[in-house]
Amino acid sequence: MISPLLDALIDRTLAEDLGAGDVTSEAVVPSTTKATARAVAQQPLVVAGGDAFARVFYRVDPGVRVERFVADGTRVEAGTALFAIDGTARALLAAERTALNFVQRLCGIATLAARFVAAVPPECKLRIVDTRKTTPGLRALEREAVRAGGAHNHRDNLGTAILIKDNHVAIAGGVKNAVARARERAVHMTRVEVEVDTLEELDEALAAGADVVLLDNFTLDAVAEAVRRTAGRALLEVSGGVKLEHIAAIARLGADLVSIGALTHSAPAADISLEITPLGAS
Amino acid sequence: MISPLLDALIDRTLAEDLGAGDVTSEAVVPSTTKATARAVAQQPLVVAGGDAFARVFYRVDPGVRVERFVADGTRVEAGTALFAIDGTARALLAAERTALNFVQRLCGIATLAARFVAAVPPECKLRIVDTRKTTPGLRALEREAVRAGGAHNHRDNLGTAILIKDNHVAIAGGVKNAVARARERAVHMTRVEVEVDTLEELDEALAAGADVVLLDNFTLDAVAEAVRRTAGRALLEVSGGVKLEHIAAIARLGADLVSIGALTHSAPAADISLEITPLGAS
Amino acid sequence: MISPLLDALIDRTLAEDLGAGDVTSEAVVPSTTKATARAVAQQPLVVAGGDAFARVFYRVDPGVRVERFVADGTRVEAGTALFAIDGTARALLAAERTALNFVQRLCGIATLAARFVAAVPPECKLRIVDTRKTTPGLRALEREAVRAGGAHNHRDNLGTAILIKDNHVAIAGGVKNAVARARERAVHMTRVEVEVDTLEELDEALAAGADVVLLDNFTLDAVAEAVRRTAGRALLEVSGGVKLEHIAAIARLGADLVSIGALTHSAPAADISLEITPLGAS
Amino acid sequence: MISPLLDALIDRTLAEDLGAGDVTSEAVVPSTTKATARAVAQQPLVVAGGDAFARVFYRVDPGVRVERFVADGTRVEAGTALFAIDGTARALLAAERTALNFVQRLCGIATLAARFVAAVPPECKLRIVDTRKTTPGLRALEREAVRAGGAHNHRDNLGTAILIKDNHVAIAGGVKNAVARARERAVHMTRVEVEVDTLEELDEALAAGADVVLLDNFTLDAVAEAVRRTAGRALLEVSGGVKLEHIAAIARLGADLVSIGALTHSAPAADISLEITPLGAS
Amino acid sequence: MISPLLDALIDRTLAEDLGAGDVTSEAVVPSTTKATARAVAQQPLVVAGGDAFARVFYRVDPGVRVERFVADGTRVEAGTALFAIDGTARALLAAERTALNFVQRLCGIATLAARFVAAVPPECKLRIVDTRKTTPGLRALEREAVRAGGAHNHRDNLGTAILIKDNHVAIAGGVKNAVARARERAVHMTRVEVEVDTLEELDEALAAGADVVLLDNFTLDAVAEAVRRTAGRALLEVSGGVKLEHIAAIARLGADLVSIGALTHSAPAADISLEITPLGAS
Amino acid sequence: MISPLLDALIDRTLAEDLGAGDVTSEAVVPSTTKATARAVAQQPLVVAGGDAFARVFYRVDPGVRVERFVADGTRVEAGTALFAIDGTARALLAAERTALNFVQRLCGIATLAARFVAAVPPECKLRIVDTRKTTPGLRALEREAVRAGGAHNHRDNLGTAILIKDNHVAIAGGVKNAVARARERAVHMTRVEVEVDTLEELDEALAAGADVVLLDNFTLDAVAEAVRRTAGRALLEVSGGVKLEHIAAIARLGADLVSIGALTHSAPAADISLEITPLGAS
Repeated sequence: MISPLLDALIDRTLAEDLGAGDVTSEAVVPSTTKATARAVAQQPLVVAGGDAFARVFYRVDPGVRVERFVADGTRVEAGTALFAIDGTARALLAAERTALNFVQRLCGIATLAARFVAAVPPECKLRIVDTRKTTPGLRALEREAVRAGGAHNHRDNLGTAILIKDNHVAIAGGVKNAVARARERAVHMTRVEVEVDTLEELDEALAAGADVVLLDNFTLDAVAEAVRRTAGRALLEVSGGVKLEHIAAIARLGADLVSIGALTHSAPAADISLEITPLGAS
Repeated sequence: MISPLLDALIDRTLAEDLGAGDVTSEAVVPSTTKATARAVAQQPLVVAGGDAFARVFYRVDPGVRVERFVADGTRVEAGTALFAIDGTARALLAAERTALNFVQRLCGIATLAARFVAAVPPECKLRIVDTRKTTPGLRALEREAVRAGGAHNHRDNLGTAILIKDNHVAIAGGVKNAVARARERAVHMTRVEVEVDTLEELDEALAAGADVVLLDNFTLDAVAEAVRRTAGRALLEVSGGVKLEHIAAIARLGADLVSIGALTHSAPAADISLEITPLGAS
Repeated sequence: MISPLLDALIDRTLAEDLGAGDVTSEAVVPSTTKATARAVAQQPLVVAGGDAFARVFYRVDPGVRVERFVADGTRVEAGTALFAIDGTARALLAAERTALNFVQRLCGIATLAARFVAAVPPECKLRIVDTRKTTPGLRALEREAVRAGGAHNHRDNLGTAILIKDNHVAIAGGVKNAVARARERAVHMTRVEVEVDTLEELDEALAAGADVVLLDNFTLDAVAEAVRRTAGRALLEVSGGVKLEHIAAIARLGADLVSIGALTHSAPAADISLEITPLGAS
Repeated sequence: MISPLLDALIDRTLAEDLGAGDVTSEAVVPSTTKATARAVAQQPLVVAGGDAFARVFYRVDPGVRVERFVADGTRVEAGTALFAIDGTARALLAAERTALNFVQRLCGIATLAARFVAAVPPECKLRIVDTRKTTPGLRALEREAVRAGGAHNHRDNLGTAILIKDNHVAIAGGVKNAVARARERAVHMTRVEVEVDTLEELDEALAAGADVVLLDNFTLDAVAEAVRRTAGRALLEVSGGVKLEHIAAIARLGADLVSIGALTHSAPAADISLEITPLGAS
Repeated sequence: MISPLLDALIDRTLAEDLGAGDVTSEAVVPSTTKATARAVAQQPLVVAGGDAFARVFYRVDPGVRVERFVADGTRVEAGTALFAIDGTARALLAAERTALNFVQRLCGIATLAARFVAAVPPECKLRIVDTRKTTPGLRALEREAVRAGGAHNHRDNLGTAILIKDNHVAIAGGVKNAVARARERAVHMTRVEVEVDTLEELDEALAAGADVVLLDNFTLDAVAEAVRRTAGRALLEVSGGVKLEHIAAIARLGADLVSIGALTHSAPAADISLEITPLGAS
Repeated sequence: MISPLLDALIDRTLAEDLGAGDVTSEAVVPSTTKATARAVAQQPLVVAGGDAFARVFYRVDPGVRVERFVADGTRVEAGTALFAIDGTARALLAAERTALNFVQRLCGIATLAARFVAAVPPECKLRIVDTRKTTPGLRALEREAVRAGGAHNHRDNLGTAILIKDNHVAIAGGVKNAVARARERAVHMTRVEVEVDTLEELDEALAAGADVVLLDNFTLDAVAEAVRRTAGRALLEVSGGVKLEHIAAIARLGADLVSIGALTHSAPAADISLEITPLGAS
């Protein structure tokens, strides 16, 4: 996420958590007291959101120093120190919760994504991809977290690529017509995807020249047949409540993509603690 | 959430999901085609986020009409229709995902909160409360969802009330000193809370005149003893990884509050579908 | 006020005073000419707004250095130097008026607040508190200025605490009902205040369990009787056009709080001059 | 003030005063209860800020209707009703304080400005003008209030006209040089003003072709002499702590302008009450 | 462009052109005077920017009515009326220049784009596409104008598709490596384009599996050879100072795309007049 | 343009061109690879926009260093290096297009303005001035570019000076009335301009005391007569499709100003290249 946008997001979030300022610390903690802190993984996890975590402290006080021990995308065991932070006690206490709220959510997503990726047999080409079911306001960060977990992104938003759904087909009067209109309108840098509910619709989509076909709620058998019929003429995306335990089978059938909404809409927050140690005044 | 702030949040979220506009619909759907839609619960859930859902459509196109069948805070069964939406097909398709992303998350939180609330025996005074572990950018909406689920909110942010933690005590040179400084600084409309790790610290907090004491990671036995020692002189908040199955026992011990971070940081999205039906041009 | 919000406020204010830029200095002052300046109190005053003053210069030009001679909350005599500023002449001339507009208003508030605080006999517990009658856009800074003057803040805004007024009582069908509903809804960290016009209403408020009672336009005699009846069961706030000359008497009656709208809505600006001395090019 | 900017200012101010929403009314007032209100002058005053007052209610709830009984710029007696407001009780209670904070400040400014204007003998051409000593964030509204009071505005900001001060003269190496550079740079639609401390400097400014000369802290005798020497070749602005009681004399000497910082930096808020009457549910 | 973003852009632009408000009209035009206006093409042009034009008036005053006589994308002759506008004279005078500044620029772009499109022989598949050389702040509107002219858009921004340039190749150590890395990182909905300077580089790009190849500053002969060698394995984009007079020849060679920076960076504004007729007070 | 506003404009523009980030460079360019770049004029031009160019790089990455070889307002030959830039390859590639889009447009305006200025015979007083026909969102920067080219600005916006047009005259019931009302309302620092279509209207405007008169679409003969009749009582501005080849003649007739809308609405972008050289990792 580019810096000006990330900073703007962080500033809004700090306003949310700090309001008029940290009353407790202003009352109890001298402004010159220094502190040091360490963020430690309390569970095995895949790291994501390091930039957001570090810049929260920086936006609270540019004098805080954040050292990163592991890069985004790294898998770590419980007990691993992820960040060291040094600055005034007031700054660390003020930024703590906001920084954790970002990094715990993003590590949660990366960790879940990595579990899906790990389920793909190494010899298979299957990509795990996210969806537009992201948290309002956090899409860019969540997409980065998905990649940190080794998965891939689907289209960024409705403006960047074409995905023709059943309603579009109905209104356009058929798949062929819808694909033709979409191709004419689409930027030449993008592919055209069509959602299908049956193998018959798949045939239509392929005949219409779809670049990617989304197989909506297909059984494993139907996916197998779809791969056979498609024969490489289009990428095939399997979608619809796919569970972790189905990934290996789908991969072995030769599908190209599985999209998983839960990566972003239901990943539990990762458990990361921040232990702050006051150091006395500087 | 007050309207100007809600609209600003929705606008940022729409920008995220629409980018330069819904290319697919612009290519395939005539601008005059009308449609109707119905949002239906696919699981038992507690409704929250109705305002956000409705205003997403309104911000995309003020001509869309959203009818709400059930108020926030209502528990519904799977299959219940929550909203009916009427407008142009383009507007409905453009707003669909953003509206669902809001309402599924918020219903998820309300539903989880309601499960915790339901676990409190009716004769007990125990309040389930949230924490500051909210999604960056969504605190106000998530706090409303917590209340829709029948739970209560903790302090809004660091600026609105005092919570003295171990670091504050260490820096202040003791609980008594910390509470005195905090009381002097605090707005008279707010109470002062102290976090304690042991029963000895509880005694100190009570002696210092704390209004609320947070019992951090206490065993059930220790909570029982804390209730006994406190004898109504302060509110007691139980905190630290409390699971649903412990709620009834804690409630019966006479604690006043249990705070649950998972309400907002790990509630899975509720399953709600939006079925859109094109109607032809008006 | 947290930095990102303060900077955003300053940027808006600079846009207001600089528009397309300081035409006069661009025409007449070489960009390399340096200058030094000193801000001097022209009257006895209590300092407030030091952060805002310094950051105005910093936002115009990060190369400007501002030294602060006295901390916020300090009382100084006429003739005392408050700040020294060094930088380019263009930056100092561009920031001058905006920086003064902030600091003169905020020192004016702190100085008026300090006069009220000084009127409280030392043996009395009376707190002088502000109200929500603040300048649109400046609430956070004005509340800090009130504290710099030794007074205290009332609730920050309508969302952070409960104050039940006559209309609320009328709609709720009585004080008891209103307090009960408010207590159920309120965050447990906050107290519930009730406004009363008569001693009878005070009795009702106390019976309903109000934590704080606002005595609206009570005579001194009525305040005395209110203190007697309340007997410590609630905090008593005296409100309604209280003048400086009444403070001592109210304090001696044993009231807990006096709220003064004039602290923020009618404090005259403090007289502070900024003398700039050009130094030649660096 | 143009609508989009006024609305943005109001939204920021509402966020300041409402925070997460009006807790008291949400707890106590049913959402369907209607109310009516009347804003009444409690002192003689000149009306200003009517737009801001009305739009605060509209931004809280577009369903509120505000009727204006007197236009901005009108002088009214104590007891005059200024506005009637009808809407839900919640909306009226939520908007009340913000709307009053705007209108009381702006009427205060208009009323003070009108007192200065009234002090100018009818046969004199003297204009009372404001300065850049405005409240941060409120310049546009305060300038309108000054005009509502019958006074005039000085330049809007540093970018819209030239005012050469002593530092500019010192750096430019003389008045003549400074005026020449300024004239070359200035937009041809604007005049060039020079600040002078002595009659000798006035002579220099006139010789240099200044369009307007600011007489800084001149005695009445010096002003008289300045008028004589200038003989209509430039407009003369009297400035520096001018009190109401000096206005008539200055006007009779033939000065063109008196600028008064206190109009905006120290006008006490006007006393306006808002009486709300609940009406029951609609 | 989605409405909230368009309105925000318009509001910023109105602030730029109106500042503190239209002084002239406030002084001279009664607030109740109505007017009617007509925007008329003074040259043959292709219409674009109709939404922006209409919403400028609406943002100034929601009471203004704008009727559109011709849709975006329509070619009209000189003298054609494009819009009729009715409202208060003040609103029309205030919005006039801003509305024209939008529509003249956007019609200018559409008109230039249409000239390039018209130069493509009807039997050729060649697409005229824009570039990222757009006006800062206006990309979304300018891309729509390009489409109104019948041309197509290239990728929206650096985040939505891959274009590998010479520097990327140098850093990656060869085309093959660069394409492989890009393909792995790219969203599966997007194609990968490679810029080449020679036919040898074209061969490498094709071997590496590029989906699109940008021929940078190729002669017509080299383009012909490129088309031959590519044989449909990739789309070919001709780029680099292409003039209108070369379009037909390039099209006949069988290239797929020509990108023209001048469409957005150097299109002269279209000549459109707005004739306002005052109507008297309503 | 003051820094906070310039940075905000740049941030919006970067968001437009970078979206979710530069995918190509992230895929292909290691984050530690350094690069150096040089911006070189490809045509004779007048430099403008140096601040905007440099700050684009700084906003992308504060570690980038930009050296400026020539100041704004300098005329350079083709082949002249304007800027050197050093930083990471990723930062340079990400900022390149946005920085060029600013500087090419602004240099284009300065260069066109300089051509008009050069056409004024040295002995003539004629000023070339811009209009309000600027690019939406870029007025401040474009006005600076006009000045860099040696021309002057007209009024900044509708709020900073008075220009009475035919509609104003019609509504006011005559020039005299319109000027009188405008003078009363106008800030004393600003002049009053009147637009006239005929010599008779010029006489009226002069009689009414206009400070500046705009001669709309006058022939050269009519301009000559206007200069004669005016005899220095007002500034005369020639306006209406004036071409470069008419400037000398108009200047010799003794007009004071010629306003040229094309300076900002139709200046072609200047040709400036940015050559980036990768340097390897640091």
